Amino acid sequence: MDIKKIEGGVTAAKGFKAACTAAGIKYKGRDDMAMIFSGEPCECAGTFTRNKVKAACVKWDRELVSSGKKLHAVVINSGIANACTGEEGFEACRKTAEAVEKSLKVPSASVAVASTGVIGMQLPVDKLVKGVEDMSGKLSGSPESGTNASKAIMTTDTVNKETAVSFTVNGKEVTIGGMCKGSGMIHPDMCTMLAFLTTDAAIERDLLQKAVSEVVNETFNMITVDGDTSTNDTFMLLSNAQAGNERICSEGEAYNCFKEALYMVCRDLARRMAADGEGATKLFEAKVVNAKSKDDARTLAKAVVGSNLSKAAIFGCDANFGRFLCAMGYSGADFKEEDVELFFESRAGKLMVFDHGVPLNFDEEEAVRIMKADEVTVLIDMHEGTEEATAWGCDLTYDYVKINADYRT
Amino acid sequence: MDIKKIEGGVTAAKGFKAACTAAGIKYKGRDDMAMIFSGEPCECAGTFTRNKVKAACVKWDRELVSSGKKLHAVVINSGIANACTGEEGFEACRKTAEAVEKSLKVPSASVAVASTGVIGMQLPVDKLVKGVEDMSGKLSGSPESGTNASKAIMTTDTVNKETAVSFTVNGKEVTIGGMCKGSGMIHPDMCTMLAFLTTDAAIERDLLQKAVSEVVNETFNMITVDGDTSTNDTFMLLSNAQAGNERICSEGEAYNCFKEALYMVCRDLARRMAADGEGATKLFEAKVVNAKSKDDARTLAKAVVGSNLSKAAIFGCDANFGRFLCAMGYSGADFKEEDVELFFESRAGKLMVFDHGVPLNFDEEEAVRIMKADEVTVLIDMHEGTEEATAWGCDLTYDYVKINADYRT
Repeated sequence: MDIKKIEGGVTAAKGFKAACTAAGIKYKGRDDMAMIFSGEPCECAGTFTRNKVKAACVKWDRELVSSGKKLHAVVINSGIANACTGEEGFEACRKTAEAVEKSLKVPSASVAVASTGVIGMQLPVDKLVKGVEDMSGKLSGSPESGTNASKAIMTTDTVNKETAVSFTVNGKEVTIGGMCKGSGMIHPDMCTMLAFLTTDAAIERDLLQKAVSEVVNETFNMITVDGDTSTNDTFMLLSNAQAGNERICSEGEAYNCFKEALYMVCRDLARRMAADGEGATKLFEAKVVNAKSKDDARTLAKAVVGSNLSKAAIFGCDANFGRFLCAMGYSGADFKEEDVELFFESRAGKLMVFDHGVPLNFDEEEAVRIMKADEVTVLIDMHEGTEEATAWGCDLTYDYVKINADYRT
Repeated sequence: MDIKKIEGGVTAAKGFKAACTAAGIKYKGRDDMAMIFSGEPCECAGTFTRNKVKAACVKWDRELVSSGKKLHAVVINSGIANACTGEEGFEACRKTAEAVEKSLKVPSASVAVASTGVIGMQLPVDKLVKGVEDMSGKLSGSPESGTNASKAIMTTDTVNKETAVSFTVNGKEVTIGGMCKGSGMIHPDMCTMLAFLTTDAAIERDLLQKAVSEVVNETFNMITVDGDTSTNDTFMLLSNAQAGNERICSEGEAYNCFKEALYMVCRDLARRMAADGEGATKLFEAKVVNAKSKDDARTLAKAVVGSNLSKAAIFGCDANFGRFLCAMGYSGADFKEEDVELFFESRAGKLMVFDHGVPLNFDEEEAVRIMKADEVTVLIDMHEGTEEATAWGCDLTYDYVKINADYRT
């Protein structure tokens, strides 16, 4: 499998265009709406939040995706989440989709919508409709339009996040690109806050959904910023079959290559979302190896990156490894502390601090040196099996508190 | 039932003495060891952490309590948790208990031990033994000795926590008193960090344990500071039967009165532990009423006080109620957002912000005024049943991060 990282995001794949606009929904003087569009109808696979309280747009999109309808467009706004908004919120989705139908002559039932921002406020529908009209005249397949779209969907994110890869299926170049945004209320359960991927691969809808479900589980579902599973988590992959490859109709070499490429895109986006968690100064990775089961490995890794105390220790470069063991202990996974080895690892080195149930007298200065890197890994060897899992999070900082003590003002 | 709040803590009940000393285990120049002692042997009921990684002292105490042995003493140190310390950690427990046996002529198997502090460091056994010798000569039943013991077990706590009540069983005055400490790594699962209660009530061991299990579940198990379930959570209630009351041998009026008194003591200590959570500026209470089931009510209340985003909003006096609904949504409880009413409430007033699925245009200044109080309640009416539950937590502040980014130095 030869998968190349390439420039670009949602417009990297053939036939996809994007646009954005400053609709003035909540932010002033910056783009706060984005649209992704394909003239060719797209198969769509998606996963959505498992939060009982689902945003109106999540309900809208779930219906579209589960009905198996082909999609032409996704319209996204930042600033207001359209969650806890009752019937009026659902109307806002319908009117947005109808505005696309009017401007771009595609059925409103081929238009997905997504929102991110404050929960419990109504969207200004007039501004949304005007935004759609404006964007419809500006759609472009240029790399810049993809980049600008990835900037328009940001809320407390400090950097935009997009990525793309290409590979070959039976002599035809196929591309997958995508964008996503965080950065608080991030503890995806099925998928992340907002992530939109596009591909020109020709692939059966069932296989597309299978690849999405498996890959999202290993990537976006393995990150956490604050343990709060959002009401708006949305992951959608649109495929318009413009690459001209022989249609992928069964599992095999081509499917495996597609899935691996999808994994690379999702892993890259998910890591960047974790690293850009609200207030974060660094990426915090927990890698669990030699666990009894895959489930145990996942549970342990997620508990470690999810612990407030672990996250604060990572911020302070304090090798207080007992907090990691404590988090493993309450995670629900079954293990013996006597089997466990624990290491700190980064670009700057690797240091064992706990050896089969016994704390080591390690060099504190060496530990600080390792933990000062912008990506820090806690490596945990369970010595109980052969399964492994990696989870990603970030440190807990003063700025996380600052951002969230006063989010709405 | 006439239950009176009285002064004092662990020495309030007849026949209980306490002492403390500065053993120099980790802190310099302050008391860091405490002992509770009863010359009469005590029945003991207890609950302990469900964390897979249990401190050596928790393993020691669980064995004592489950064996049904009568207890004479509890020895507690602050500074080092004696967790993740292997065989050497268990030896420290044994040697501490043996020191009590030598000094006070009671069996080492009647001595419970408890520790709180850094995980993954070994206890200095010589200092522990010397501390026991010192305290054995200073035991006193005075209120001051109880208060000093409650101060000696503090770590990041900012205030000591003790309380006591008395009531009458068939003409005899019975007392329950206790002390506890927090204040980080608090998300009790079975019981809290460290809480020690004493009573002079004569009561059957099985009833004692039953009352403890039920009351702890409604009090200490309903608080959270940071979602981290400690390796050391320990709750013990010692009863030496010195009140001279007719022994409580069955459920009935006397048992109910005992249980209600125990509830008052535990609720008071638990609330104070939550209010004194690391870095906290206020007590954050979530009260769920009219839920479908008790379990749902508990789950919803705990999710709300446990959410980092909710906690940060409480700190910032930001009535961002969507975060509370979001937390309810991912809690695992089943409900319809269309049924929910949500209020902010404090000494300063009460304000409805969400009414059966629809956000209200409430007065933001009024909301800030209510949320500025030192105890803030989020009242959630589910309109789906008759069950209720209350959970207690605290706000998430800069100081929580500060304390935990640099705990060991």
